[in-house]
Amino acid sequence: MTTSTALLFADLTGVAVFAASGASAAVAKRLDIFGVVFVGFVAALGGGIFRDLVIDEVPPLAFADWRYASTAAVTAAACFWLHPQLARLRTTVLVLDAAGLGLFTVTGTLKALDARVPPVGAIVIGMLTAIGGGLGRDLLTAEIPVVLRREIYAVAALVGAVGVTLLDAVGYARALPLTGAALLVFVLRLVALRRRWSAPVATLRPPTTGVRGPQG
Amino acid sequence: MTTSTALLFADLTGVAVFAASGASAAVAKRLDIFGVVFVGFVAALGGGIFRDLVIDEVPPLAFADWRYASTAAVTAAACFWLHPQLARLRTTVLVLDAAGLGLFTVTGTLKALDARVPPVGAIVIGMLTAIGGGLGRDLLTAEIPVVLRREIYAVAALVGAVGVTLLDAVGYARALPLTGAALLVFVLRLVALRRRWSAPVATLRPPTTGVRGPQG
Amino acid sequence: MTTSTALLFADLTGVAVFAASGASAAVAKRLDIFGVVFVGFVAALGGGIFRDLVIDEVPPLAFADWRYASTAAVTAAACFWLHPQLARLRTTVLVLDAAGLGLFTVTGTLKALDARVPPVGAIVIGMLTAIGGGLGRDLLTAEIPVVLRREIYAVAALVGAVGVTLLDAVGYARALPLTGAALLVFVLRLVALRRRWSAPVATLRPPTTGVRGPQG
Repeated sequence: MTTSTALLFADLTGVAVFAASGASAAVAKRLDIFGVVFVGFVAALGGGIFRDLVIDEVPPLAFADWRYASTAAVTAAACFWLHPQLARLRTTVLVLDAAGLGLFTVTGTLKALDARVPPVGAIVIGMLTAIGGGLGRDLLTAEIPVVLRREIYAVAALVGAVGVTLLDAVGYARALPLTGAALLVFVLRLVALRRRWSAPVATLRPPTTGVRGPQG
Repeated sequence: MTTSTALLFADLTGVAVFAASGASAAVAKRLDIFGVVFVGFVAALGGGIFRDLVIDEVPPLAFADWRYASTAAVTAAACFWLHPQLARLRTTVLVLDAAGLGLFTVTGTLKALDARVPPVGAIVIGMLTAIGGGLGRDLLTAEIPVVLRREIYAVAALVGAVGVTLLDAVGYARALPLTGAALLVFVLRLVALRRRWSAPVATLRPPTTGVRGPQG
Repeated sequence: MTTSTALLFADLTGVAVFAASGASAAVAKRLDIFGVVFVGFVAALGGGIFRDLVIDEVPPLAFADWRYASTAAVTAAACFWLHPQLARLRTTVLVLDAAGLGLFTVTGTLKALDARVPPVGAIVIGMLTAIGGGLGRDLLTAEIPVVLRREIYAVAALVGAVGVTLLDAVGYARALPLTGAALLVFVLRLVALRRRWSAPVATLRPPTTGVRGPQG
């Protein structure tokens, strides 16, 4: 398996996984089959479309390569029909979502670096690639975006993106260390889920809500 | 009237129609004149801006050709002043929205094919061009996006986009059959409205809400 | 100080100011440190990313120049730690937001004109650059977008963008008159805040809500 085949495989796996997470969220909101496929599509491909637009790879892969849209649509439709089984597999979905986060962080950061985006920009693009689809999914289904909740999610992607950029800087961006970076994001996210790790919240003086007080 | 004049005319008609739908939604939410024009602008031009970004036609037509922004702004402002009459014409607005859906599906798919996007991608871009503005309008006015509701909306656009792509594949993408494709979307949407056709929803086991149960 | 240094300085000041407005909104919503930085990032750089995409300056400055992302992230993080002081400085934040509106209107319109976008399009892009970040901030924190509320906000940016375009048309787009345009937006917004100026709202027949009446 060549490197580019491996990258494609990693990318399509991430697409399928995020399509499943989007479809599950849409089923839970009682959307119809088309709504489910649409939210699955946005969750799977939204981050990558944004990435391709900012690195000027147009048309974005999601439109240029039929395997992307097809993988997203078929997976989301499958989730629609199979969701009772999926519901029992809730843990599986969370694990798959963590895997997608790791895969997209690595492929997104790599593609940005390949397009000659400077390190800081590539890190931000890699992170946005990984969290963008979930952000779109949450906006569409009117949930508070997972990235804004008190959980280690975006920061896991951030750590992975920094890792890929460092590997690239020392000229060591080969298959094995990159897989390690993806695994790092994956494990970080899983541990955060299990231990309910969360980032600090600013302390607000009780019980006034600060900015929008009565004098607001 | 040449083909490109006809396309421009079809496009501007779609812009006016969607601007009216956006403005009506904004008036109903009691937004001020600028909010009404802004939502009208997003509804009319959002889908096309997205389309132009992904097919690398920059600056997007909405900014490159003053007739687009002007048509959207003038129509939306007119709806602000004339809305009591519009309210009585609710059916008219729905019919016009269906017409816009048909027009944007055809012009969006054609432009993507012209930009050498492969068939599957062109179909998705055509559909997103048609539904994108409405999606933006609904997100801005905090409505559940119409495309996610239990109605034949996105699927009408999808059918039209597939039709245009097939016509293009057999080298038959001329004015008459393309008008037929636009009419097909239009009629499909109207019939769905009248018969209250809707797509199936996944059956959830009562009354647990699946994914977010008490053990969530 | 050369013109381009001055433009960079104006741009980074706008970035810091909008990052602070986004971070303050996120703190008030009790988001964690990463959510605060993320909303700050979107508020500070969202409008500029959109502008760069439509004028085909890719990768957008927000990713191509590390000073942009860093300014946004550091400012937002600082607001997270310093917010109790900020809360007392609510007026300051509103004033800074008005200053950012003026700065982004001028730099956004200028960049669009430099990219050979025609006048009407450049005006719209300048306005969207200025209000885009705040729109993203409000969508993420589930607020009714400020641009849609009954306040002179987008219209202040619109006036400034028209001014810059006129100055450019008569070949008079130098530092001093451009600073005047930024000041005009700033003062217009401040006066609107103080006098509670607002744009007219369409009169709806009491108490029926028009479009979505019982027959809806």
